[in-house]
Amino acid sequence: MTKDFKPYYAVIFTSTQNINMEGYSEMATKMEDLAKKQNGYLGMDSARNEVGITVSYWESLEAIKNWKQQTEHLEAQQKGRQDWYSWYNVRICKVEREYEFNK
Amino acid sequence: MTKDFKPYYAVIFTSTQNINMEGYSEMATKMEDLAKKQNGYLGMDSARNEVGITVSYWESLEAIKNWKQQTEHLEAQQKGRQDWYSWYNVRICKVEREYEFNK
Repeated sequence: MTKDFKPYYAVIFTSTQNINMEGYSEMATKMEDLAKKQNGYLGMDSARNEVGITVSYWESLEAIKNWKQQTEHLEAQQKGRQDWYSWYNVRICKVEREYEFNK
Repeated sequence: MTKDFKPYYAVIFTSTQNINMEGYSEMATKMEDLAKKQNGYLGMDSARNEVGITVSYWESLEAIKNWKQQTEHLEAQQKGRQDWYSWYNVRICKVEREYEFNK
């Protein structure tokens, strides 16, 4: 581990979606904008083929908890379960080590 | 946290690729097959749009270390840096909590 590495947290959200995804794209954009405004938000990566993977990065477990309970986000989660996702999985992880390659 | 949850590890690999990806697809399949045979391998999720995200899941840090140092995997990593990736990031994470939704 790098000496001065400060652990932070990652939320790995994997999901499969339904056929009818009406309204999803607008909501996804809205939620990403909202996440960026949360205390302790560090960043996000997202990609989707058969499965969708969104990983968001946070300073602390408390920041993740606050984001999970944010009012508009709660509404989005409910709509997600009702209309958009056939399955999803959420993993709360502590990032213990990190390295990067840049050509 | 669920009482009987046993922590495990996730490797979050994010990357951007070059234009010429000759040979990549065969190598990716080969490496996925090889990963599945490693001790302590638990699973993998993968998706790519602008950025590629592959998350692999492992029983222990030792299993991750062994996989990183596996001979054919080392060759693939070298080829990846030389030919395929313009950038990548590797995060070693401890999965501390997990929940799932199933419609």
